[in-house]
Amino acid sequence: MNDKQKKPQKLKARLPRGFVDRSAADLRAVNEMTAKIREVYEHYGFDPVETPLLEYTDALGKFLPDSDRPNEGVFSLQDDDEQWMSLRYDLTAPLARHVAENFNEIQLPYRTYRAGYVFRNEKPGPGRFRQFMQFDADTVGAPGVQADAEMCMMMSDTLEALGIKRGDYVIRVNNRKVLDGVLEAIGLGGDDKAGQRLNVLRAIDKLDKFGPEGVALLLGPGRKDESGDFTKGAGLDQSQIEKVLFFVGIKDYAESAVQLAELVAGTEKGVEGVEELNFIGALVTSAGYRSDRIKIDPSVVRGLEYYTGPVYEAELLFDVTNEKGEKVVFGSVGGGGRYDGLVSRFMGQPVPATGFSIGVSRLMTALKNLGKLGQQDIIEPVLVTVMDGDVGAMGRYQRFTQELRSAGIRAEMFQGNWKKFGNQLKYADRRGCPIAIIQGGDERAQGVVQIKDLIEGKRLSGEIEDNTTWREARVAQETVAETGLVAKVKEILAAQAEDRKRAADGFEIPYDPAQPGDDDDDV
Amino acid sequence: MNDKQKKPQKLKARLPRGFVDRSAADLRAVNEMTAKIREVYEHYGFDPVETPLLEYTDALGKFLPDSDRPNEGVFSLQDDDEQWMSLRYDLTAPLARHVAENFNEIQLPYRTYRAGYVFRNEKPGPGRFRQFMQFDADTVGAPGVQADAEMCMMMSDTLEALGIKRGDYVIRVNNRKVLDGVLEAIGLGGDDKAGQRLNVLRAIDKLDKFGPEGVALLLGPGRKDESGDFTKGAGLDQSQIEKVLFFVGIKDYAESAVQLAELVAGTEKGVEGVEELNFIGALVTSAGYRSDRIKIDPSVVRGLEYYTGPVYEAELLFDVTNEKGEKVVFGSVGGGGRYDGLVSRFMGQPVPATGFSIGVSRLMTALKNLGKLGQQDIIEPVLVTVMDGDVGAMGRYQRFTQELRSAGIRAEMFQGNWKKFGNQLKYADRRGCPIAIIQGGDERAQGVVQIKDLIEGKRLSGEIEDNTTWREARVAQETVAETGLVAKVKEILAAQAEDRKRAADGFEIPYDPAQPGDDDDDV
Repeated sequence: MNDKQKKPQKLKARLPRGFVDRSAADLRAVNEMTAKIREVYEHYGFDPVETPLLEYTDALGKFLPDSDRPNEGVFSLQDDDEQWMSLRYDLTAPLARHVAENFNEIQLPYRTYRAGYVFRNEKPGPGRFRQFMQFDADTVGAPGVQADAEMCMMMSDTLEALGIKRGDYVIRVNNRKVLDGVLEAIGLGGDDKAGQRLNVLRAIDKLDKFGPEGVALLLGPGRKDESGDFTKGAGLDQSQIEKVLFFVGIKDYAESAVQLAELVAGTEKGVEGVEELNFIGALVTSAGYRSDRIKIDPSVVRGLEYYTGPVYEAELLFDVTNEKGEKVVFGSVGGGGRYDGLVSRFMGQPVPATGFSIGVSRLMTALKNLGKLGQQDIIEPVLVTVMDGDVGAMGRYQRFTQELRSAGIRAEMFQGNWKKFGNQLKYADRRGCPIAIIQGGDERAQGVVQIKDLIEGKRLSGEIEDNTTWREARVAQETVAETGLVAKVKEILAAQAEDRKRAADGFEIPYDPAQPGDDDDDV
Repeated sequence: MNDKQKKPQKLKARLPRGFVDRSAADLRAVNEMTAKIREVYEHYGFDPVETPLLEYTDALGKFLPDSDRPNEGVFSLQDDDEQWMSLRYDLTAPLARHVAENFNEIQLPYRTYRAGYVFRNEKPGPGRFRQFMQFDADTVGAPGVQADAEMCMMMSDTLEALGIKRGDYVIRVNNRKVLDGVLEAIGLGGDDKAGQRLNVLRAIDKLDKFGPEGVALLLGPGRKDESGDFTKGAGLDQSQIEKVLFFVGIKDYAESAVQLAELVAGTEKGVEGVEELNFIGALVTSAGYRSDRIKIDPSVVRGLEYYTGPVYEAELLFDVTNEKGEKVVFGSVGGGGRYDGLVSRFMGQPVPATGFSIGVSRLMTALKNLGKLGQQDIIEPVLVTVMDGDVGAMGRYQRFTQELRSAGIRAEMFQGNWKKFGNQLKYADRRGCPIAIIQGGDERAQGVVQIKDLIEGKRLSGEIEDNTTWREARVAQETVAETGLVAKVKEILAAQAEDRKRAADGFEIPYDPAQPGDDDDDV
């Protein structure tokens, strides 16, 4: 910056494209939510660990869906020693680096969790941000699918701990090996077909979005979207497409088990995959998780390339209205799978691992829809107003404020331009302050303060509709001795809390009664 | 990535230079700490708000200390629309952008807080990382120094809420205007001297590090450090240097007030600054914060260029031993000041603001030193071992585990290769598991489980020194019916907790008894 530049050009204050500021309500909600998630994970024996936001680009690898060109999808920069670094695009690749780097110190199997921001260098769109939070849990060094079964149970317990009722969600499980078996059975086995297989995976992953017809196009010749953009297809023929669609269309695993076994018979991977799925099914059932909570579902694919075995997804089943006014199932809020190759990229030995990721913003939206967040209201601060600016008066206002805070009451002294008193009351109103404390020169001389109950004041002036049980009016303004300030404020806050409780009791909490299974008390 | 590449070259797993992974203990400590800080800030009427980690480079500005060249100090990258973005280097500049961008929606004065990672593109060194966490609080739209006084009281309350005793810390307050007055008085006023003034500020900011002699060199001709690197000085003459050193050397503000007033007499800024300092002093005294908590101290400067009025710093006064084995005062854990120009950079109008930042890692180190973090032990999980791998046996192990978890007990089933049972007990030992659950074929047939008290087992085998009050040995291994599993585990955990309590009661918690002022119960 040039020191001599006297009038700096006015800058434009603007968020970078695709990024957002997060509000108090959202941050409090995220806090409340992540605390509950953490508690479940800790109970499962998981410990936190955290990696930095930047990694060397080569350590991250390129496993993003829908991006084949180098560096596409990630934010990268060059360090002063010429090495390329990237902002992490998920929390799994950095964990793999962490485990490999500290392999001799880490006690395997290693159960671990972390929440943090990840970055995608993509075209931003509505509800599609370039920085968002994920909450991950992983077990590294766990070769058996009992670890995958545990992940599914933990996802289920987490959703219930967050207040999502049984019947309002399901954890769907599939296995990449079964799919590999299907692909082998239709002639797509072998290393030289890896690219085509990946295209098939990505096509299947769009089932929710485009339906079977759309996916058929993506599996075959390709698909043109509404805007005219053409996505190249995987180039399968009609009979191949039908087999893939049969597989992903399986609704009841038990019913279709024989047909599926026939389809993959003779493929080593396919047979192994079916066995693993059955094993997971038996384990979770034995632990009391029936198919209303964890369900085997061959349509689950997960777009990431690094999965090698079981994959699983948490789906919310209740309807929401989308931006077009249509009723749609809320859908996925997280998922994951087994990634046996990701740590071994760095090692001379196999290191099996499995884990999943929760999309924090999406889950928060769901919980808000259900009214499961921010149940306890944040009470706005008691406002100590300022009538005089001399050091003696100001010192007293400051003292009142500190006394209230020391007594555990949220309180603030007005910090704006105090000379127009009306501005202070307007501020209290906009901020939703429950009480205002006022002391002018006369009151100061007598050692008293005025205490204004702003909620009752509003009720009396008719601005608030009185939905509560009828009760006699409180006094909306009282004069008390300075020494009685804290006690009186506590009394008024308690009366206001009582009113809120009555108002809440007077209303039904709206909830769709047509949901099956209401036993949400046995998490 | 090339699909055809069959044997990918083995990658090296390594953290980027100057970055660290954070351990479970540190993450739990940060969580505990930030929750306490948040509680104080909320009581003061502050609300959270969060900005993204990337900002447009021009919006951040260049206010870092010790970096004059463009882009030095920050990590920057170019977006696909050619705009430059940078990882934020503090939380203040992004807040200024946020307020300016949402000026019409935000109710001023606006009290707000946030914790988050910031990045410095600097040469990493011991304990000097390129990503670290700050916890900031700011009031925007508050013109009077009563807002600065509030910040000082909030810092004081925060340190006490974290368990730091009165007398073990002090909040030091100064005012840039007083310093400006001193500089004007010695002939360094005027816009053309801005560069020289900044050099003087930076020299003074090194007082802790280099002492008065070192600062005198930096104020004058320049200073050569131990490695031979030469830092150019501010070029003051002897009489100028003496006046600056007198000012920053003031130990007792009241005693030196007359001399100071004489020094700045006739400079508008200096007189204003002294008045503001006195006003802050009177306000905090009136609210019950004496000079053992908040102290006016002209040696405080704060290196950042954007401060315009009061500056303040939280310093911890107890001794620690540094890496060279020397006893040193712990020193600063955070600070801030008034930055009336930072929001206005974007606006056509003045927007006064003040705020401070806590260095989270540094404060955590301090609290660990004092034994004020992680007081409640994390209990490691109960281990359900695996003796057989068939689906029936595994299903039972899984069920035991889920029953324990449902009962609120931290538990896990062994997820590694279970075939060598010794490995499982070794794992339990290394991980510190309190209890192991064992069920082989015979026990399964009888519907019973073995429960091993691993802590008592160690005590009996003499591996743990028994510092607790003598007591009779518990049974270290018991066989109970499957239905009695949860109750028995609870009983053993309770007995272990009782032992830990006895052991803790048997020891003095080490603390330096020579500290003044022990009344830490009135936060």
